[in-house]
Amino acid sequence: MMSMRFGIVTVSAFVLLATQAVADPLSSWNDGATKQAIVEFIAQVSDPDSPSFVPPAERIAVFDNDGTLWAEQPLYVQLIFALDRVKVLAADHPEWANTQPFKAVLENDLDTVSAGGHHALLELVMATHASMTVSEFRIIADDWLGTAKHPTTGRLFTEMVYQPMLELLTYLRANDFKTYITSGGGIELLRVFAEDVYGIPPHQVIGSSIKTQYEYRDGDPALVRLPEISFIDDKDGKPVAINQHIGRRPIAAFGNSDGDLQMLQWTCAGDGERFCLYVHHTDAEREWAYDRESHIGKLDQGLDQAQADGWTVVDMKNDWKTIFPSKAD
Amino acid sequence: MMSMRFGIVTVSAFVLLATQAVADPLSSWNDGATKQAIVEFIAQVSDPDSPSFVPPAERIAVFDNDGTLWAEQPLYVQLIFALDRVKVLAADHPEWANTQPFKAVLENDLDTVSAGGHHALLELVMATHASMTVSEFRIIADDWLGTAKHPTTGRLFTEMVYQPMLELLTYLRANDFKTYITSGGGIELLRVFAEDVYGIPPHQVIGSSIKTQYEYRDGDPALVRLPEISFIDDKDGKPVAINQHIGRRPIAAFGNSDGDLQMLQWTCAGDGERFCLYVHHTDAEREWAYDRESHIGKLDQGLDQAQADGWTVVDMKNDWKTIFPSKAD
Repeated sequence: MMSMRFGIVTVSAFVLLATQAVADPLSSWNDGATKQAIVEFIAQVSDPDSPSFVPPAERIAVFDNDGTLWAEQPLYVQLIFALDRVKVLAADHPEWANTQPFKAVLENDLDTVSAGGHHALLELVMATHASMTVSEFRIIADDWLGTAKHPTTGRLFTEMVYQPMLELLTYLRANDFKTYITSGGGIELLRVFAEDVYGIPPHQVIGSSIKTQYEYRDGDPALVRLPEISFIDDKDGKPVAINQHIGRRPIAAFGNSDGDLQMLQWTCAGDGERFCLYVHHTDAEREWAYDRESHIGKLDQGLDQAQADGWTVVDMKNDWKTIFPSKAD
Repeated sequence: MMSMRFGIVTVSAFVLLATQAVADPLSSWNDGATKQAIVEFIAQVSDPDSPSFVPPAERIAVFDNDGTLWAEQPLYVQLIFALDRVKVLAADHPEWANTQPFKAVLENDLDTVSAGGHHALLELVMATHASMTVSEFRIIADDWLGTAKHPTTGRLFTEMVYQPMLELLTYLRANDFKTYITSGGGIELLRVFAEDVYGIPPHQVIGSSIKTQYEYRDGDPALVRLPEISFIDDKDGKPVAINQHIGRRPIAAFGNSDGDLQMLQWTCAGDGERFCLYVHHTDAEREWAYDRESHIGKLDQGLDQAQADGWTVVDMKNDWKTIFPSKAD
């Protein structure tokens, strides 16, 4: 009886190993130099017999979100969220009918909103993201993400994520990496979907933030979101935030724009085996094609440094078999 | 052959289980209501058949450091570090011989330093903690912690940790808790020893911080510490920082002063089974006895709320069999 059970365990283990050897963890990536560079890096740092071995605790990979894990065209998702929220909240703000940039939003006049620049965007974000508790904000964001549709594809925004990057996240974690998001987007909006969609738990999400204030209302504590910027997690801010949250230098970094350049520099300047990758948007048919001249996701200096420093650059059109996950019908 | 090996495995597993059942994971805690409350809480949230069961991902426990995990008398360790650093750096700062609060530090005149209040302390911290890279600071702090001795016990500061709390940290982690530090002390000083001494990795350390700036010097990136406060992780700041770093409300919180009160309120106001504990310093012989009137680690409002809300209060003198770990000779 005992030896019977042991025999079954042995056979099952063998079948499992054989299956793992056959299944391709990066099946949405075309074979080629890019995929090979990823696979080799992960193999080297995970192999205890390799001179490039890195202990699991130090296997930290950081990912930008907009344009790296999900689509950022024609507008950042967070901006679409803010515009939608202005329309919902307008009923309580009759003054917005005659106040910019709100008037322009209500009239779907995006040119005027854009003309208002950074200041107009900040006003829209503060009017829609603040003056509520963190819990309240999460419910609003979760409801919105559950129904709002991408303006050109009609998909949910959480279906506009890149299938090859989902596979990469899973593959890294299967090799004992901790995967973090380090996004210019708001940390609380990211946390609403990052665990379900990317498998990244709230404590591994780093993002921009507004200030929050602790209040103790009749014995019931609350964290209230204030209309004041706390931290912008972009460009120079990314390595600063990585150090603040993680306290260790990552060994792999993934981005798609000049906003990620400092994060990649910081990561790849460390000792030992390192991996830096840019997603280059080259597929005008299946996604969008943009780089040096784009207002969103501009990739200019980064493309030059990637070439100079030998970082990996994903050519979306040729390296990715699939862009988005197939929809469950 | 197969059944032989299987038999050995079975016997080993039995021996292991038997040993675990006998060993007390909280052996430095005297039996009594405090220990029982801890053990029952952990058992309830970890038992899948209990109505109070909490999934492992939500088993988050937060610990204050000064006075909760290590001794904070007669001065905060970080302040002793700053005072020692002033003496080391004085050679490069001849002007300090005639400038307060530095003059007082160099003359070991702590009364004058104290009389300078918050502003004097801030000056000392900025002069000793900033204007170097994060990596350089860690080396300085690590060197200091490896040699500096507590002024009355002569122990290393990392030997002035509480043995019962070390056991509690280990016991929580054995039950799939994530253990975090949330300290008013500086995040980078904590990270230098938290992993070795407490088993808490850098990404689970939350603390006060000064601003850091990313610099790219001849292609070599660095994070430079600036003489400017970024965040004070004390009182109202604790729940704010917990939300920022963890993004989930803890289910257990451990503190020793009014500086931890908001963290305990925030933790124990959540739904489901919660656990809040104050370490009450009642042992003038083996440690220090202080609470409502103390300048360091004042516990006044917190003691009242603990009683009103039924939080657990450790009576150090009676609840702890041992205070500090026995020294390895």
